Amino acid sequence: MTHALAARAKSTSAATEGRISQVARPSSLSIINEPRSVEGFSFAGVSAGLKTQPGVKDLGLIVADRPVSAAGAFTSNLIQAAPVKIARARLRAGKARAVLVNSGSANCFTGRAGEKLAIASCDSLAKLLGCPPHLVIPCSTGVIGRLYDLGRLKQGLKVACAELRPHGASDFAHAIMTTDTRPKVSCTTLALGGRDVTLMGIAKGAGMIAPAMATMLAFIVTDANASSGLLRQALKKALPTSFNALTVDGDMSTNDAVLLLASGRAANSALSSRLEVEKFEQAVSAIAKDLARQIAEDGEGATKLAIVRVKGARSRAEADKVARRIANSPLVKTALFGCDPNVGRILAAAGACGVKFDPERVELSVGRARIAAHGRIIESALDKARQAMQAREVEICVDLKQGDAEAVVLTCDLSVDYVRINAEYTT
Amino acid sequence: MTHALAARAKSTSAATEGRISQVARPSSLSIINEPRSVEGFSFAGVSAGLKTQPGVKDLGLIVADRPVSAAGAFTSNLIQAAPVKIARARLRAGKARAVLVNSGSANCFTGRAGEKLAIASCDSLAKLLGCPPHLVIPCSTGVIGRLYDLGRLKQGLKVACAELRPHGASDFAHAIMTTDTRPKVSCTTLALGGRDVTLMGIAKGAGMIAPAMATMLAFIVTDANASSGLLRQALKKALPTSFNALTVDGDMSTNDAVLLLASGRAANSALSSRLEVEKFEQAVSAIAKDLARQIAEDGEGATKLAIVRVKGARSRAEADKVARRIANSPLVKTALFGCDPNVGRILAAAGACGVKFDPERVELSVGRARIAAHGRIIESALDKARQAMQAREVEICVDLKQGDAEAVVLTCDLSVDYVRINAEYTT
Repeated sequence: MTHALAARAKSTSAATEGRISQVARPSSLSIINEPRSVEGFSFAGVSAGLKTQPGVKDLGLIVADRPVSAAGAFTSNLIQAAPVKIARARLRAGKARAVLVNSGSANCFTGRAGEKLAIASCDSLAKLLGCPPHLVIPCSTGVIGRLYDLGRLKQGLKVACAELRPHGASDFAHAIMTTDTRPKVSCTTLALGGRDVTLMGIAKGAGMIAPAMATMLAFIVTDANASSGLLRQALKKALPTSFNALTVDGDMSTNDAVLLLASGRAANSALSSRLEVEKFEQAVSAIAKDLARQIAEDGEGATKLAIVRVKGARSRAEADKVARRIANSPLVKTALFGCDPNVGRILAAAGACGVKFDPERVELSVGRARIAAHGRIIESALDKARQAMQAREVEICVDLKQGDAEAVVLTCDLSVDYVRINAEYTT
Repeated sequence: MTHALAARAKSTSAATEGRISQVARPSSLSIINEPRSVEGFSFAGVSAGLKTQPGVKDLGLIVADRPVSAAGAFTSNLIQAAPVKIARARLRAGKARAVLVNSGSANCFTGRAGEKLAIASCDSLAKLLGCPPHLVIPCSTGVIGRLYDLGRLKQGLKVACAELRPHGASDFAHAIMTTDTRPKVSCTTLALGGRDVTLMGIAKGAGMIAPAMATMLAFIVTDANASSGLLRQALKKALPTSFNALTVDGDMSTNDAVLLLASGRAANSALSSRLEVEKFEQAVSAIAKDLARQIAEDGEGATKLAIVRVKGARSRAEADKVARRIANSPLVKTALFGCDPNVGRILAAAGACGVKFDPERVELSVGRARIAAHGRIIESALDKARQAMQAREVEICVDLKQGDAEAVVLTCDLSVDYVRINAEYTT
């Protein structure tokens, strides 16, 4: 995913944006990868028969007790799925009552029929919930160009509504999976405005590497009392270092969406001080980063997580460009898969991205092995680098030695299984 | 290879550049994929023990009877191998006597020692040939960060010089191979300035997809009487639609080089008329395109050639951007490998590259199957698309329907073997 998920919020100035460092995280914040309940929300995940595999969950719901504050960020792909267009438009008002997610069909490049289908799906859920249709936010993931069966979906919605419960997040997390090998959940609680506030994030990944350009979807719900403006700002700040710092194969989905919903049921006082706002934003960022990490770890065919850190850059944009090029290089990714310290590939990728730096000054390390400096590969460090590459998590660090800016991009290796999985999907 | 090989020639104006259409080729020009002799040149390819596999040819020579006109184009990677730096500097004078190519080591990121090694290698050959060292042009391909043994190279040069012969191009073509499965040769003869003129191109590919960021190298020799200025111009015009229109994995080598040498032995009259010059340029382009095609066909692990054509664009730059994004998409490439008509991936890749177009107007065909139009996938055409994908050569055509510009990018599929080959190389 090389694209910037375009957060809808425009209110944050560049000046305030810069204040949150990429690695900032409240030291007290502990993240738990188990579902919880979050006051004000119910969840369900059922099998509606939308996927070809029978009995597999393919329909998920998040329903709030009443309309809640909401913000979203969506793919910047020029080709956008019908549900993305509808969700984006509906979230302009900053309110939502329910999120309707189907897997098995992306409902993208499906023309007017696709738009009608998404609207009819939302209408159906709105009727069951007794709420206005514009408060239902649709998300789809699956094969591009395919519609799903409206009758089956409607039937599924009835079952799902009957199963809605505060502890249903695990069912929801399973229902939105495509080629994910495990559900992705991330929770935290923090004191805010005089109350304990909980945030829970649920994502599906395999990311762009999933068959059929399946989609990254992430949902963060909180019981915090927070305006939609504040949610937009928090989401906008969270994106660059979380979902937008994630690349599995450099391909950009047509359906990516990240939603943030706040029920207000924690009844904390309004987040007015800068300190409180930042605390909330950091919690949203921490959940988003944790979900992004889970997505990279569970990339299609992935055997390991790679953290590509570029520091010493003149600007964050340049650092990001170098890191992204390395993270998307098939040669770097196959070397990671094979635990082969062919580190010249990393430098060649860096040198290819258009960012100017001095090859004589650049330093490269893999894990704790300092493997290149002064314009030379340090051959004596190759064994140490090979060892580092055998871990489930490998950090590649490039120091450009020409500034203070830094960026981190998360990715995974490119394995034989990646090719196998993606070579045979729709047929 | 997403980079522009930077031709050294600056003399060609944009106006004249635009006159050669991408598909222009003298209709009478027939290309033969067998080595020939080209008057004024001798060739050799021997085993010097530079590669770890014993007995494998790893040292190639092209030697002209006397100094000849020469031009070169090199990688635009910021990190450049020692031989690239030296070759670029030496070709400024437009003359060469010999080309010295080793495989097994890229001699890149090897510091001052690498530069000394390349210079000493050239010096050694110059001594054997009795020519000034600055007329020897070095090229290396292999693992980045590794030096080769100078003693072995010197010994190999003696053997190679003894074996130099006009019909030795096949040995040379084999000596420069890395993971290529076959040598790549392309010859043509045309009437020019009152004489028959022959051009022969020899390339190594596997391209950037070869292990260890091995390199694309291409050498075109001709007996034409042509100034170095004319060679530079011809090379510059040939690049956009040949080697720069080629991508195997989007990775850019540190050692790419294309050289064009003209012995003048055909004794044609000076190419003074615009018509004659264009005829020569078109012949160079035709050879370059044919070699580029051979490189794509023999991409690492490749099972098929893919021709990505984008037409109806507002500019060639935009057409190229869309074509390149599609050609580099791992999802498109794995679908090609699996003959899976998951064509939404092609549209999603197009939509992700930053070029604006109207999704409602864009048309997509795979082979002769028109598979998307009017904002919808045409499901009834999927079978025909699947059949087209089963061929050794697949054309993907995207019509943006907003202009007259067109670009073609050549690539190959992404197979299980690509990952296998690149996961385990240096170790």
